[in-house]
Amino acid sequence: MRQVAIVGLGQTPVREHWGNNLRDLAVTALRNAMEDAGVDTLDGVCVGNMLSGALSEQEHLGSLIVDYAGLDGVEGMKIEAACGSGAAAIRMAVKAVASGLMDKVGVVGVEKLTELSGNFSTTALATAADADYESTMGLNFVGINALLMCRYLHEYKCDKNDFSLFPVNAHQNAVHNPHAMFRHTITHKQYAESKMIAYPINLLDSSPIADGAASVIVVAHENMDQYAGKPVSILACEVGTDTIAVDNREDPLWLKGVERSVKKAYHVSGLSPKDIDFFEVHDAFSIMTALSLEASGFAEKGKAIEFARKTGIDIQGGLPLSTCGGLKGRGHPVGASGVYQVIEAVQQLRETVPPKIQVPRNDIAMAQNIGGSGATVITTILKKIA
Amino acid sequence: MRQVAIVGLGQTPVREHWGNNLRDLAVTALRNAMEDAGVDTLDGVCVGNMLSGALSEQEHLGSLIVDYAGLDGVEGMKIEAACGSGAAAIRMAVKAVASGLMDKVGVVGVEKLTELSGNFSTTALATAADADYESTMGLNFVGINALLMCRYLHEYKCDKNDFSLFPVNAHQNAVHNPHAMFRHTITHKQYAESKMIAYPINLLDSSPIADGAASVIVVAHENMDQYAGKPVSILACEVGTDTIAVDNREDPLWLKGVERSVKKAYHVSGLSPKDIDFFEVHDAFSIMTALSLEASGFAEKGKAIEFARKTGIDIQGGLPLSTCGGLKGRGHPVGASGVYQVIEAVQQLRETVPPKIQVPRNDIAMAQNIGGSGATVITTILKKIA
Repeated sequence: MRQVAIVGLGQTPVREHWGNNLRDLAVTALRNAMEDAGVDTLDGVCVGNMLSGALSEQEHLGSLIVDYAGLDGVEGMKIEAACGSGAAAIRMAVKAVASGLMDKVGVVGVEKLTELSGNFSTTALATAADADYESTMGLNFVGINALLMCRYLHEYKCDKNDFSLFPVNAHQNAVHNPHAMFRHTITHKQYAESKMIAYPINLLDSSPIADGAASVIVVAHENMDQYAGKPVSILACEVGTDTIAVDNREDPLWLKGVERSVKKAYHVSGLSPKDIDFFEVHDAFSIMTALSLEASGFAEKGKAIEFARKTGIDIQGGLPLSTCGGLKGRGHPVGASGVYQVIEAVQQLRETVPPKIQVPRNDIAMAQNIGGSGATVITTILKKIA
Repeated sequence: MRQVAIVGLGQTPVREHWGNNLRDLAVTALRNAMEDAGVDTLDGVCVGNMLSGALSEQEHLGSLIVDYAGLDGVEGMKIEAACGSGAAAIRMAVKAVASGLMDKVGVVGVEKLTELSGNFSTTALATAADADYESTMGLNFVGINALLMCRYLHEYKCDKNDFSLFPVNAHQNAVHNPHAMFRHTITHKQYAESKMIAYPINLLDSSPIADGAASVIVVAHENMDQYAGKPVSILACEVGTDTIAVDNREDPLWLKGVERSVKKAYHVSGLSPKDIDFFEVHDAFSIMTALSLEASGFAEKGKAIEFARKTGIDIQGGLPLSTCGGLKGRGHPVGASGVYQVIEAVQQLRETVPPKIQVPRNDIAMAQNIGGSGATVITTILKKIA
């Protein structure tokens, strides 16, 4: 297997894009990434997307996007793994290049969630859960996360308001990211007074649905100097799975999918949690941040909040989280989020983020994309090239 | 790259499966294939499916199917390329094994199209076309194929009734396939008198929507003797793409996606059309059979019918087509069809089909799966192992 690098980045702002359709967003991001890499063709394109069929009446995105990007005849394939679709597409590209099958592969994660009214997207997002045993019983994704958070508060006897430190940090960082959806700070008081969505999850625990597209260009290390974009190494891009239905899990508060994914990623990279300089966490809901920190080996079980307080999760902290706003502050265009996370990690390693959110220790980054409450988890570890 | 073989097959009958849901079908096929191969675990599972989100309210099939198949923690990923999803999943598995990334990979193509009424599935299937320039204008898949067939009749001055030889042959073969949906013959007279669906396409030009799941186990040649199932070599599994919108094509009667896919497949295998003993063609509509025979290099442009007459397409003919019924006779469960085609080709090479449909020359088989009127085409060439 060859070593692999990212040499091109492209993204659209995360917004309600009323004036741009799905293909516009995808092609804009992909062409920007190709321009950054200095390439005018690719060997293949991996598309990460969950809901184009349900919300834009468009499946078959692989060939659509290569066609619209002017890549006539190039292989384009869509991969779907719920909210993990973006990093799943990156994994597909990384493996295609690592194996020597292809030399330069484009990844584009794209989602357009605001095309129809919110009810449609909530229903569509619930297809990431178990249709026969969860969603048909009325359980949607806020509901599933609310049950998990309830259990967490009960088991570990913590104060619900302590979770505020995650979204407060995410918003603080999003202020400086020009592509973020919410460029304003929030306070602990605002969190405590925020509108309840599904007890105990309030509005400020919840990442917003949004539209956006994000793209990276993956190439072999041995060729990376041929490209215009400053390269960053991918040390690992590994997947772990778990049951979809949360009630089938031995311990619903332990994300086995996360554990499996990070174990492989640490093994492949030869690293451990203490080597990670900052972490692009899948903060779709505050509870997911806590559970991910624990199953990823950063915090002990039930101690994520204590860990966050002690270690520090802001830009100057011991483990900066959501450095460009995370899903909470940047926005969560489902199938694109995993690619945004990796782009933001690469920008940190390239030192091209705005100074106020540049993390001081930036040799090794970890990004983790989670599909369906932990059923598909892809952990990517990236390394600066000196 | 390592040589790759198929060592396990599993399939459900193609039917309206009112008593089995999507996961039942998928897991039945996958476990049967694993039993045939004599394995109780896999390194990964590639799922080919197009419409589970639209018609069964279930996305995220990768982790769902590995979970329900008892493959706890195994990587499962869904790939979608419209009607080409099945072979796209096979290609993904073949590349994972060829590259040395994985040793044994399960592929399962699954589709449940009859869960809701026909209007829903027609609308859902139209998401394989260009949503902004075709489907929103009212064009569905019968409509697109009707326009192509109209043009074919006009350009090549042939008699519409001459197309009957394709469905008559497919039904003749389906009679002997216990998994086929339509196990009855049809006559040329019945074809000529068949109900018009969208001129010039009549009912007997059209493959039926259906439910079904089909699975193969892909392993490395170097290890194939470790498995219980009789192995068959995959010489090539190559993809070609074209514009989704048919009106964007230079010549709508020339399937450039097919041409690109077969050129690669012939190149990789070192073979040419004359080496192919029989052909599992994507006969979703009779016109697709004709266009595929031409762009695949079997017949000259506009001469598919003449070729079929002269060469013979029945079991004893020069190029047997749709030997187990094809999409027309076996049925067309969209994301599963590409896997059914490969299973049937392997059964011919293993000589395990019922005697009346066993092709006499059976060293080299070709199967071709087409997504969206030729926008994604995957051609697989298989070889008997003596």
